[in-house]
Amino acid sequence: MSRLTLLIDCPDESGLVARVTGVLHRHGGNIVENGEYVDPANDVFFMRTVTEGIEDADLLLRVLQTELPSGAKVKVTGARKKRVVLMATKEPHCLGDLLIRAKFQDLPMDVTRVIANHETLGELTESFGVPFHCVSADGLSREEHEEKVRELIEEDSPDLVVMAKYMRILSSEFISGFRNRILNIHHSFLPAFIGANPYRQAWERGVKIIGATAHFASEDLDQGPIIAQDVIPVTHTHGPKEMARNGRDVEKRVLARAVRLVLEDRVVVTGNKTVVFE
Amino acid sequence: MSRLTLLIDCPDESGLVARVTGVLHRHGGNIVENGEYVDPANDVFFMRTVTEGIEDADLLLRVLQTELPSGAKVKVTGARKKRVVLMATKEPHCLGDLLIRAKFQDLPMDVTRVIANHETLGELTESFGVPFHCVSADGLSREEHEEKVRELIEEDSPDLVVMAKYMRILSSEFISGFRNRILNIHHSFLPAFIGANPYRQAWERGVKIIGATAHFASEDLDQGPIIAQDVIPVTHTHGPKEMARNGRDVEKRVLARAVRLVLEDRVVVTGNKTVVFE
Amino acid sequence: MSRLTLLIDCPDESGLVARVTGVLHRHGGNIVENGEYVDPANDVFFMRTVTEGIEDADLLLRVLQTELPSGAKVKVTGARKKRVVLMATKEPHCLGDLLIRAKFQDLPMDVTRVIANHETLGELTESFGVPFHCVSADGLSREEHEEKVRELIEEDSPDLVVMAKYMRILSSEFISGFRNRILNIHHSFLPAFIGANPYRQAWERGVKIIGATAHFASEDLDQGPIIAQDVIPVTHTHGPKEMARNGRDVEKRVLARAVRLVLEDRVVVTGNKTVVFE
Amino acid sequence: MSRLTLLIDCPDESGLVARVTGVLHRHGGNIVENGEYVDPANDVFFMRTVTEGIEDADLLLRVLQTELPSGAKVKVTGARKKRVVLMATKEPHCLGDLLIRAKFQDLPMDVTRVIANHETLGELTESFGVPFHCVSADGLSREEHEEKVRELIEEDSPDLVVMAKYMRILSSEFISGFRNRILNIHHSFLPAFIGANPYRQAWERGVKIIGATAHFASEDLDQGPIIAQDVIPVTHTHGPKEMARNGRDVEKRVLARAVRLVLEDRVVVTGNKTVVFE
Repeated sequence: MSRLTLLIDCPDESGLVARVTGVLHRHGGNIVENGEYVDPANDVFFMRTVTEGIEDADLLLRVLQTELPSGAKVKVTGARKKRVVLMATKEPHCLGDLLIRAKFQDLPMDVTRVIANHETLGELTESFGVPFHCVSADGLSREEHEEKVRELIEEDSPDLVVMAKYMRILSSEFISGFRNRILNIHHSFLPAFIGANPYRQAWERGVKIIGATAHFASEDLDQGPIIAQDVIPVTHTHGPKEMARNGRDVEKRVLARAVRLVLEDRVVVTGNKTVVFE
Repeated sequence: MSRLTLLIDCPDESGLVARVTGVLHRHGGNIVENGEYVDPANDVFFMRTVTEGIEDADLLLRVLQTELPSGAKVKVTGARKKRVVLMATKEPHCLGDLLIRAKFQDLPMDVTRVIANHETLGELTESFGVPFHCVSADGLSREEHEEKVRELIEEDSPDLVVMAKYMRILSSEFISGFRNRILNIHHSFLPAFIGANPYRQAWERGVKIIGATAHFASEDLDQGPIIAQDVIPVTHTHGPKEMARNGRDVEKRVLARAVRLVLEDRVVVTGNKTVVFE
Repeated sequence: MSRLTLLIDCPDESGLVARVTGVLHRHGGNIVENGEYVDPANDVFFMRTVTEGIEDADLLLRVLQTELPSGAKVKVTGARKKRVVLMATKEPHCLGDLLIRAKFQDLPMDVTRVIANHETLGELTESFGVPFHCVSADGLSREEHEEKVRELIEEDSPDLVVMAKYMRILSSEFISGFRNRILNIHHSFLPAFIGANPYRQAWERGVKIIGATAHFASEDLDQGPIIAQDVIPVTHTHGPKEMARNGRDVEKRVLARAVRLVLEDRVVVTGNKTVVFE
Repeated sequence: MSRLTLLIDCPDESGLVARVTGVLHRHGGNIVENGEYVDPANDVFFMRTVTEGIEDADLLLRVLQTELPSGAKVKVTGARKKRVVLMATKEPHCLGDLLIRAKFQDLPMDVTRVIANHETLGELTESFGVPFHCVSADGLSREEHEEKVRELIEEDSPDLVVMAKYMRILSSEFISGFRNRILNIHHSFLPAFIGANPYRQAWERGVKIIGATAHFASEDLDQGPIIAQDVIPVTHTHGPKEMARNGRDVEKRVLARAVRLVLEDRVVVTGNKTVVFE
């Protein structure tokens, strides 16, 4: 039976759960998964519901918009696989992991292409039958380089762009063109060690735990809404190189987890934070 | 404003969420927390809702029982602190932790008394102003000993009995008198290492992780519904003694976590499992 | 500068560390990493040392054998990449992860071939330029099937055979031919849920944590020496299918970790346990 | 048999392990635990050894100082319990945990007194038979207040001062009087959220993991050498208050772990980092 996923984000008022579930019930929908959250600081209501038995997504969307307070944002999505563009530089661990997960249907996405600023990962990408585009930054201004990348992305009209260790900083202009649609993995436990060389920073500080953070890219570097984080222990015996090596395993799993959450419509951005329905 | 917590466990049918939230809305209740779960293997619906603005718990209970399918189990609880009897033997870590948490209102419970089969923990207990009863098993049959313990417990009519490392095995008869009201901490990651000396068993097997399990006591030893588990890494350098020492920290935190979940009415037992609303 | 790794396993007596480090010092070796462990239950001494500045591994081995008590087992290895045969069935996650790690030098191994009992993973394997051999069990007795597999393995004289979710049970005879050289990943936190369908067993028991275990294969199924374990939390919402999906990420990382430990000569088997120098 | 613990910190040169273990062997010492580490960035050698069978700690110290390079720092300690002053403010969780561990010999320390800047924890402290001193800051300058605290500490000549959630900032002058002898617990995963209200900062940033850090107090606030860290997951449903509540459990266990490491002479400070022999 076909499933629809509802994501609702609207000013809070009494009775919203009853109204939404009432609509679903009257239209023959059975609730398979349900989550709500009220942000008490801002009086905003969030709801994610997976329902079975309703065929007409557009009708459901219109009915909900009528029933809910003005200002409500409602999203109804079906089971279509999302279209994803991956971006990378030289490190294979995140890219390879996502390509395998896509190929073997572990993640519900079609990778339409991989864009990189070096040739290194071309062979790996193409061995999965995915088109690879190297856009070298050599001899180009930042604007020119980003313009080329943007054009390639827009050819695919992706639902999501995933920076799988894409190691160039993107301009605010670039990011604002894909608001909350660019997912990045930062190799530290943000907000610790913002910026370059986080493993070296971690080693210099002598921390006993390192981590990785998956977040939506925002105009402020490393400041976007966090989706998922994870950590591993380290000791004094780990130099920056060992931290980087062990950290790659964390980066890989945090990124895969965040991609899954976004693909399954479990993430709502609110201000600079996320509500994640798990 | 006063809060009520609803726990519902009933045969699944379409529209249950709409019905329950509709009742709450019509009676002026605002939903503060909400969770549902449908067990697909048995078609059972579970719901936990915290609501503000409804004063009459009994009325709400009656209305819900009318609206819900026959066979529905409904529980409505107010903010009253639960009454808890703690049981222990010689080890202070779990008992001391719970006594401190109770004294400083970290856990919403009144510890009405501590029952132990040794004198060791009497001074500690009494320093918290809690009555201590040592019921030695010396010279008593198991039935006689349990009868004495049962009488002491029943004097307090507790909501919950917590075995904070009570190291005697209780008979099925004893446990069946307090079904799903005795919470136990087992010092292994169940179902591994059932029975005596789990740390020694773990050391003999050469595991690299050890754990602890909080569960409701059931007639079958170490087989009751699991509420919470946690683990820590160990290495070849940990003998049974070091495992036990490190394991105590896990036992302590798993037990405290499970006690909190039960005190906050977040746990529903279904068959030999639990649904835990977090 | 070239490095040698020493692994020593011998009856304990006083002064062993002084003797070994004295030998290294007199032969111009500088100690880069060092670990010792005495098993107090069996009076066995274990030592792992990485040394720089000694060129002649054979000479060092002979000197150490002279200096150490009779009964000492000494292993001296250089930086040669180990030869590894991977075995798999249909699931790509562990195999794909190891192939990427090998290709990009994250793990110091040459994968000489992949042997599977189904065709599913052939394309993935060959896209990494690694020979793939499908040995179907159809129409063969267990002995015949294992004989074919053994012949293929022996053609490569591998240092290690890694069962990357190879889902057939191997006979004691087969395993005894590769003692402590077959590494297996079991999809449970052993010794919980030995045998078939561990995720279903975990779901039926209602555990709140699931795990994976990498171990050397032994004649007794799922009883071999454990090298590494890890776990993740689950809730009542996870059925066997969701546990399996989430569990795959744990299997993948535990297996990769155990393979690394073995490739770096960090693991000594003693009885049914391992000493792991990290 | 009596045990001695050696801690060595000296400029690296070849043969140090052989020299130290040779000394121990010639004096009849048997090595029970041994760890070494060479800091490759600064060419410093660290060693911790536990030895049995040597009675004369002073002789051993003198011999080692003769054998080791000039500039070597050597510490030899026996099994004496360390003397510890605890400092606290109003929160009972860390203080209570340490008092129970001391009383029941889980940690090898004598708590000589508790100093607090509020009366709140007096009853709890005294119920453990430990002297309690409230030094209110009311009406005192920072210098005057710290002078009173310092005098109380110095009366006990403690090996260690543990700030068990002491919520006043200490001056550089105060701290420099107890260099690397004041252990503090900071309620964040440093270096994230330095300074006041870390849980509020964490909530505002929308992190998905929070943590705690045990470190030696240094002249720069929250910048001292880190001994231990740990974390727990949080979600969007956790406000600052819930983060604080859950965080207390992490603070408690990280602090206890760091105290144990220091009491067992497992921690060497080097620059702004620690070498921790576990």
